[in-house]
Amino acid sequence: MKVVIIGGVAGGATAAARLRRLDESAEIVVLERGGYVSYANCGLPYYLGGVIRDRAKLLLQTPESFRRRFNVDVRVHNEAVAILREQKQVRVRRAEDGGEYLESYDKLIYAPGAKAVRPPFVGQSARVFTLRTVEDTFAVDDFLRERRPRRALVVGGGFIGLETAENLAERGISVTLVQLEDQVMPPFDYDMACILHAKLREKGIDLRLRSRVTSLRDEGEGVCADIEGGAAVSADFALVAVGVAPETELAAAAGLELGLRGAVVVDEHMRTSDPDIYAVGDAVQVKNAVTGQQALVPLAGPANRQGRVAADNVAGIASVYRGAQGSSVMKLFELTAASTGLSVRAARAAGFAADSVLLFSPDHATYYPGAKNMTLKVVYDRTDGRILGAQAVGFGGTEKRMDVLATAVRAGLTADDLAALDLCYAPPYSSAKDPVNMAGYVIGNVLRGLVRQHGWEDVPAISQREDAVLLDVQTPGEFAQAHLRGAVNIPVDELRARLGELDRGKTVYVNCYSGLRSYIACRILAANGFSCSNLAGGIRFYKVVAEGGGYDEAPRHLCGLACE
Amino acid sequence: MKVVIIGGVAGGATAAARLRRLDESAEIVVLERGGYVSYANCGLPYYLGGVIRDRAKLLLQTPESFRRRFNVDVRVHNEAVAILREQKQVRVRRAEDGGEYLESYDKLIYAPGAKAVRPPFVGQSARVFTLRTVEDTFAVDDFLRERRPRRALVVGGGFIGLETAENLAERGISVTLVQLEDQVMPPFDYDMACILHAKLREKGIDLRLRSRVTSLRDEGEGVCADIEGGAAVSADFALVAVGVAPETELAAAAGLELGLRGAVVVDEHMRTSDPDIYAVGDAVQVKNAVTGQQALVPLAGPANRQGRVAADNVAGIASVYRGAQGSSVMKLFELTAASTGLSVRAARAAGFAADSVLLFSPDHATYYPGAKNMTLKVVYDRTDGRILGAQAVGFGGTEKRMDVLATAVRAGLTADDLAALDLCYAPPYSSAKDPVNMAGYVIGNVLRGLVRQHGWEDVPAISQREDAVLLDVQTPGEFAQAHLRGAVNIPVDELRARLGELDRGKTVYVNCYSGLRSYIACRILAANGFSCSNLAGGIRFYKVVAEGGGYDEAPRHLCGLACE
Repeated sequence: MKVVIIGGVAGGATAAARLRRLDESAEIVVLERGGYVSYANCGLPYYLGGVIRDRAKLLLQTPESFRRRFNVDVRVHNEAVAILREQKQVRVRRAEDGGEYLESYDKLIYAPGAKAVRPPFVGQSARVFTLRTVEDTFAVDDFLRERRPRRALVVGGGFIGLETAENLAERGISVTLVQLEDQVMPPFDYDMACILHAKLREKGIDLRLRSRVTSLRDEGEGVCADIEGGAAVSADFALVAVGVAPETELAAAAGLELGLRGAVVVDEHMRTSDPDIYAVGDAVQVKNAVTGQQALVPLAGPANRQGRVAADNVAGIASVYRGAQGSSVMKLFELTAASTGLSVRAARAAGFAADSVLLFSPDHATYYPGAKNMTLKVVYDRTDGRILGAQAVGFGGTEKRMDVLATAVRAGLTADDLAALDLCYAPPYSSAKDPVNMAGYVIGNVLRGLVRQHGWEDVPAISQREDAVLLDVQTPGEFAQAHLRGAVNIPVDELRARLGELDRGKTVYVNCYSGLRSYIACRILAANGFSCSNLAGGIRFYKVVAEGGGYDEAPRHLCGLACE
Repeated sequence: MKVVIIGGVAGGATAAARLRRLDESAEIVVLERGGYVSYANCGLPYYLGGVIRDRAKLLLQTPESFRRRFNVDVRVHNEAVAILREQKQVRVRRAEDGGEYLESYDKLIYAPGAKAVRPPFVGQSARVFTLRTVEDTFAVDDFLRERRPRRALVVGGGFIGLETAENLAERGISVTLVQLEDQVMPPFDYDMACILHAKLREKGIDLRLRSRVTSLRDEGEGVCADIEGGAAVSADFALVAVGVAPETELAAAAGLELGLRGAVVVDEHMRTSDPDIYAVGDAVQVKNAVTGQQALVPLAGPANRQGRVAADNVAGIASVYRGAQGSSVMKLFELTAASTGLSVRAARAAGFAADSVLLFSPDHATYYPGAKNMTLKVVYDRTDGRILGAQAVGFGGTEKRMDVLATAVRAGLTADDLAALDLCYAPPYSSAKDPVNMAGYVIGNVLRGLVRQHGWEDVPAISQREDAVLLDVQTPGEFAQAHLRGAVNIPVDELRARLGELDRGKTVYVNCYSGLRSYIACRILAANGFSCSNLAGGIRFYKVVAEGGGYDEAPRHLCGLACE
């Protein structure tokens, strides 16, 4: 059997290695347009920041090492330029001399990846970069070393844009980040993204949200971007990271069935509309494991898993790719931001009766040194309590909880299942009630009607209502520091004695700092016949979202094991 | 409704707080023999080491704060001395004056905890301590401050023994640790515990395994322990941590049904044989969530969850406790050691057809700074691939993988499910194929017959066999550093060309450093008609277990994304 693989990075390289392990006698040819195979795509921004200093470290495999270990015919600088399905051949162009040749196959694995989108507003410029390949990265790095720019413009606030902005800032470069939407990190809901906005601004990054670039061009020694309805941005160079698009021209020309944004359509075995051609990685559309709908999930983990599934099937093992749920994590300066499954926005768009809870939980026991808080948002289906997704921003242990929640989402667990999870506890690592357990408890309380909750977005309207009272149950000292306009202050520990101060004819909208004490207050109020609701996330989250407040990392106002 | 709770620490305090939130009008009385409620039990060893410096920090709640917030009548230094079921009363003794009184209840929640076992070999001594309560801890701390001891004897190698040994060593005290069994940390299999043995010895702790203490008594200014068949141990003081036992004398006297080691028998609602009495925490037996068998699981997480379930049921919510799986984690100097579910030993004892795989995986992408290896053992049922448990020892991210595996065990996931998990990946946090994914792949390979594996314990017998050849596929440089006696060296990348050097009539037992390259070698050999087997964990693990080798933390010999 002869297998040709187009593309030698994540999905293609994995497929080649797995296939060799399954079939020692197959002839395996990897065609890679670039000069590198199986490289550390996700490490590229960190190379720019100097976190990864050694160019060789980015190259997980050289063509030679790959060939030696796996007996795979790796041809870098060999670009597949056509798939000839009738003849089962690929036309290949050598970069060296431009010469072309035909390579036959019994099975073809198509793993071309995605290309960085270069939007129409970008003019010709040697100072405007994208960041997709090792070559791209070295080009930016060379520019940084040779030209020593002081000001960078980053267009786009997704993973690559943010990681690059961070790494440039860490290198001492002044960064302006322009984002079309009202938030960075599209997998996050707006409110959770606001925590990242505050961090970016704290780090001196000039963050411009809701900003549409209309032209980006050379000007003098640098570049200039015009912003629709806003001030133009000048910089010494620009990096455009507005997303990627499946690079499927060959598949289109060969008449393979295409789907979303030109992505290749595959079945659960990663087989295309041509039974002899498989496709994997950023170039394909896959099932979203939560919604069941087709989606583009251009991430390294799924690409690797798909490559393995394709190899299995080529070798006669009927493995199935079960879909992606977009689990991801990003370091943003001191913060860790992670998500899995659906945001509230995405869940509602997909037709789920989605709600969410917000927690502000220490990563480990507060009596053990170094505890810091994370903000955790868990999205669930209110019809059955099933966990649909989650987002978290915090410090240590943030991505741990996200991986647990990712596993829960995949396994179809409910809120009560989260509450019952038996997770590892010792003071340096967690609390006896892990934040994931706590999320299950809070959702369970809401679903059982033990508490009603409202969100930061509801506060303005509530403040206007004659039949509503805002009750703040923080301590007087905390209340003096921050409270909602018009709120009355009765500390939770005094509430039982001071119920007479509240008007029973009005609905009481309660808040504390984080939402925990106000929940206790709500239970007291409800037991005494009041109609009441708890502000999810407390005044802390309200201030972050509505007022652009900073992130308060040190645990406080947490009342220990027994309170939750 | 009047509810009396006996015991005010983890389970009892949680029950009180939850019950108040569910029932504002109930009369709730907490009887606590000691002087503290809801304290940080798991933090006590760290107080001794000076990691936690402030006594107040150990006290999550004072009786007063608890009373204020939850309107609970907390009575410290009030000991329940009898449960009078007929009258539905508890007889209580005040420590203050020794006076007794009767307290009636509608529902009783019994959360007395467990007591530190004081074995018969321990004589009367003011220099022999146990560590269970805040009072115990302050007594040891006072001794350390006043007497400035230089040598400590710790009897027992479970959580408390190890954490205390570490903390005393960190305080500059020379520690001898005596353990009856051949390993510390009973939830671990012997081989994984060997990594901890090496660390303890590296840190200067005099570890004596398979050592039975026959007497522990005062001698001169210190203590002396006689060891059966071994040298006696002298020290300035001793800490005995040989486990805990349910402290259920009251329940026994009251005629409640008792089970394992005198633990209270409860149903899934945490109700005892008396429908008006619930019991929670270290004093009860619960279902092991993996085996379904009754077990003692004296851990903080389960106690908290049980307290909540009991409160729910008292308040009319029919919550169910679904059992414990013993997930736990411990810091041991720089190492993190975590486990969940069943060890191979425990799984086989419970009748499972259990096998395991061993991985040596970096916690995050090796090209990003700071990656360190963890040793991960995953236990599965070979009849259906279901994950039964796991153990890991490593650095950052170790307990993360254990929490994911704990969730997988709870959800009944199989090896293929692990392989398909969509976990969070970015270079600072993980690899595109997370160690948990990798474990799923390796188990899948074994179950599909793609590779056979043997363990470190099989090596001596194999070495004696005429029909076996030991093949080491490390590089010559690695081979020179460490190899099995009698092994021949053919680096994996040369194997295809040098197959003629191997005797086809013999079974080839292959090893590399960690088990990854030798798997690739096995696939090459199998495809060429050889009978072969892979040494699980490689020479590295063999040396740790069979030769007491140290722990090699820096990633090496890892071939990157595409190799797995």
